[in-house]
Amino acid sequence: MIINDPAVHAEVSAAFAAYEKALTTNDVATLDALFWNSEHTIRYGIGENLYGYGEIAAFRSARSPVGLERRIERTVITTYGQDMATASTLFHREAMGPEKIGRQMQTWARMPEGWRVVAAHVSIIPTPKA
Amino acid sequence: MIINDPAVHAEVSAAFAAYEKALTTNDVATLDALFWNSEHTIRYGIGENLYGYGEIAAFRSARSPVGLERRIERTVITTYGQDMATASTLFHREAMGPEKIGRQMQTWARMPEGWRVVAAHVSIIPTPKA
Repeated sequence: MIINDPAVHAEVSAAFAAYEKALTTNDVATLDALFWNSEHTIRYGIGENLYGYGEIAAFRSARSPVGLERRIERTVITTYGQDMATASTLFHREAMGPEKIGRQMQTWARMPEGWRVVAAHVSIIPTPKA
Repeated sequence: MIINDPAVHAEVSAAFAAYEKALTTNDVATLDALFWNSEHTIRYGIGENLYGYGEIAAFRSARSPVGLERRIERTVITTYGQDMATASTLFHREAMGPEKIGRQMQTWARMPEGWRVVAAHVSIIPTPKA
């Protein structure tokens, strides 16, 4: 298994960037398109546990578009072979203040229709001291 | 890409079960062994953001072994092809009470040394109303 093949890494990095842009502009159509349309897709969000594409899409369409802008840091994308990747990042939002930090972790897969998020987990915690 | 090939799914399910047992018995050696020994491995824990196997192992060895017992529910393991999988589960601990719920999401890869967690994210949130 080739880790971080440059061509694969570039593909996933582009998909990740497209997702990030869609997230901060609340481009729901693109967000939906980048998640795998499957009953298997799972998204653990900041305050919700969503099983299956239907629950994820319903959450997105009901979400407030306010205050989604964020700054990301320590982003790491790692690819495994030709068809799988993980993307992990920390993030800050203005409203969170410096004492809290967000974490987002995604697993991406190359599906026939393109790279898709097959599992995601987002959470906010008090900023660790260390 | 074959989703949930039965043989692959059985392998990952066994690895997941071994990890769960090691976690609740604080079997640090097994926990360490089941994480990919790589600088690329990332673990976002309940209160910490760990980058690289070294940080993860250091956290485990310093962790309190008290109160690790837990009950898991809505566990979903999904495999992608022969070599990759995600494992997602909710969990409850006695000390958390019913008003909080834990979420654990892992990405597993078949490495030459066996199935290993290459990325993990654990968080606790107020139990969603819905």
